[in-house]
Amino acid sequence: MRRWLDATSDGFEAAFTELLGMKRETDEDVSAAVRGIIKDVRSRGDAALVELSNKFDRADVTLETLRLTEGEIAAAREDCAPKTLVALETAARRIEDYHRRQLPPDASYTDETGAKLGWRFTPLDSVGLYVPGGTASYPSSVLMNAIPAVVAGVKRLVMVTPASGGRINPLSIEAARLAGVTEIYRIGGAQAVAALAYGTKTIQAVDKIVGPGNAYVAAAKREVFGTVGIDSVAGPSEILIIADAANNPDWIAADLLSQAEHDMSAQSILITDDADFAHAVDAAVEKALAVLPRKSIAEASWRDYGAIIVVESLAAAAPLANRIAAEHLELAIADPEGYLPLIRHAGAIFLGRHTPEAMGDYIAGPNHVLPTARTARFSSGLSVLDFVKRTTLLSLTPGAIATLGPQAIALAEAEGLSAHARSVAKRLGDD
Amino acid sequence: MRRWLDATSDGFEAAFTELLGMKRETDEDVSAAVRGIIKDVRSRGDAALVELSNKFDRADVTLETLRLTEGEIAAAREDCAPKTLVALETAARRIEDYHRRQLPPDASYTDETGAKLGWRFTPLDSVGLYVPGGTASYPSSVLMNAIPAVVAGVKRLVMVTPASGGRINPLSIEAARLAGVTEIYRIGGAQAVAALAYGTKTIQAVDKIVGPGNAYVAAAKREVFGTVGIDSVAGPSEILIIADAANNPDWIAADLLSQAEHDMSAQSILITDDADFAHAVDAAVEKALAVLPRKSIAEASWRDYGAIIVVESLAAAAPLANRIAAEHLELAIADPEGYLPLIRHAGAIFLGRHTPEAMGDYIAGPNHVLPTARTARFSSGLSVLDFVKRTTLLSLTPGAIATLGPQAIALAEAEGLSAHARSVAKRLGDD
Repeated sequence: MRRWLDATSDGFEAAFTELLGMKRETDEDVSAAVRGIIKDVRSRGDAALVELSNKFDRADVTLETLRLTEGEIAAAREDCAPKTLVALETAARRIEDYHRRQLPPDASYTDETGAKLGWRFTPLDSVGLYVPGGTASYPSSVLMNAIPAVVAGVKRLVMVTPASGGRINPLSIEAARLAGVTEIYRIGGAQAVAALAYGTKTIQAVDKIVGPGNAYVAAAKREVFGTVGIDSVAGPSEILIIADAANNPDWIAADLLSQAEHDMSAQSILITDDADFAHAVDAAVEKALAVLPRKSIAEASWRDYGAIIVVESLAAAAPLANRIAAEHLELAIADPEGYLPLIRHAGAIFLGRHTPEAMGDYIAGPNHVLPTARTARFSSGLSVLDFVKRTTLLSLTPGAIATLGPQAIALAEAEGLSAHARSVAKRLGDD
Repeated sequence: MRRWLDATSDGFEAAFTELLGMKRETDEDVSAAVRGIIKDVRSRGDAALVELSNKFDRADVTLETLRLTEGEIAAAREDCAPKTLVALETAARRIEDYHRRQLPPDASYTDETGAKLGWRFTPLDSVGLYVPGGTASYPSSVLMNAIPAVVAGVKRLVMVTPASGGRINPLSIEAARLAGVTEIYRIGGAQAVAALAYGTKTIQAVDKIVGPGNAYVAAAKREVFGTVGIDSVAGPSEILIIADAANNPDWIAADLLSQAEHDMSAQSILITDDADFAHAVDAAVEKALAVLPRKSIAEASWRDYGAIIVVESLAAAAPLANRIAAEHLELAIADPEGYLPLIRHAGAIFLGRHTPEAMGDYIAGPNHVLPTARTARFSSGLSVLDFVKRTTLLSLTPGAIATLGPQAIALAEAEGLSAHARSVAKRLGDD
């Protein structure tokens, strides 16, 4: 049964610390199996890829059908409902608009010595996008992962997705096409990650791999990190709602369940300053659960990881929210803008009573790939910045090195690096 | 003996590919030992920390002397040469000036539906800075790691460094003090990383750990990643110089050796369009090596990993430079600015004949913590962005959700996530 914490009670700090420390992921150690798969793909290339895909994904691919044809990509649209296609296009347009504003500016300035300094951003050459198979194939995630890369200027975007039981979700293919992906392969699992990282005869290696996946995919990404870049490994989803008594309890209950239905390991937490309202939400959750299609998942998540925390005042909620550092934070209160300065850590904040988190999952524009498991303390959601890198620039005149060189030499000598000192001294005529 | 590659010869592509694939790091597998150390510090706290530090660092610390006193920090300055202190202060000022320009702007806009969107950057609460002991204690690296964090607004900066044989480099302490670090501990190795990640009674846990270290430190950072953030693991240093025949061969030789002296695994490469000039640099390296204090290191690096590549034209150098994606790239050519657009991948670029890489190591302002081992294809050097995180913001009006809500519902239903759909539908009065 979901936890009930009273912030004014004696045992609160211990109970809250326990809540914070809850481990919601099972550490399935698949690294040995994954290392074997990667080794196999590196040594046998496409042959291993086809073999392993048919084995693990129950796919039925051959070397010839590994890559989707242009016709297959174009045809996917016909299998999607028109209403859904319109929504997908709206989402793509809004996500692009939001992310285009993230393009970071280059910089350049000349200082008083005549030194010219700055930096320049350039896009990655190529990116691989992992899309899970089966029911976890979310078209919205295809948009969220692909569009920032396209906006960043990445020229080559490669999507891999297992043809689980022979089938790929047509809406995911259409989402990829909309975003600008032209290279799609029917492969998944650790073998797909290996192919993207090291390349095979059919698939050219990429520079970075992003996108969610199961334990094998996550372990494979960890293994190939360094050879290619990877995004952060996402844990189960979370929502924290800070709500006052003026909310409709049904709405808040619906929001709590929108995360709970994701995964039995998802976590939904309500913090409120009104115990009666807390009870009303609690009851509304039970009522809504009863008729939910994904009831068994949501029920397990709410039972095992859900929590209601009653605080004395809304101001007392902020320090707790900062310790939780939730992936999603809803501020369902009268003055959410005024409350913002109190919040230091959250992946995404949804302000006001009319901003349910689900709007951000699909259509609003901000990215839905966000830091989980308290990592919002030190990391950010996916953005255009994940698909560019910064090169620093330095240009010295003879005058600038004459002014600054002696101090570089002093530091190099203090560090015992005399070849460093000499490469400066040569330009000063001192060596 | 350093490699000599002629880009017009038949075997060039194979030789260049081999050069690119060279593994310069030994994979010392210390992960089992490191896991043991971390477990020990987590279970026994300060007692383990003191014990392990005295064992591994030949330090002589007690629980009472673990942390440097204010007096000890202030006194370090007295053990530094006045000339070096002036240089250190100039470096700190210039590094701060450069990094202050990197503070990313927040954003906010209202779209045609009335939705308000944006993002906000907030600093990390606390950062741990690892500083190696002995001869690898580089004060310049203390500045390069600490100043971006301070500029980002990080309130608590903790430095750990082994008191190897009882001693800490006073210039590193002074660099920390200058940067604004007030909390310094005499601990190092995996045990220091464990203490920073999980906390002990004496040392409060931090949110992110940065700074270079040996194989144990690197493995420990990998282990604690997720619990805290970490920076990227730096490999041996590299320089690539693209130079024409108008350069002084002695200067270019000095620059090649400035990287080679770092580490026997460092790599220095020259690409030039003039074979005679290449021979002149080659001879100048041999001559300079003979009198270099760190001769044995630089000689091994140049012999095992150094390379000279002769190309037909300078334009032919750029594609090779992009494949190398060097940590440091010098453009010692007539029009380096004009050449910039040809370069897509490099950690830092040094433009013109009067900009030796060593100036960037110490005094110029840009960060010297840069991506190695071809990772500049997908990652950047250290910056203020490593010490802030972005929270996305979304605020919908009743009108905005009325406009956009139905499309979110369409997508949620297409993904089979009906609780998501309901949390939106509730606000539309449709449920």
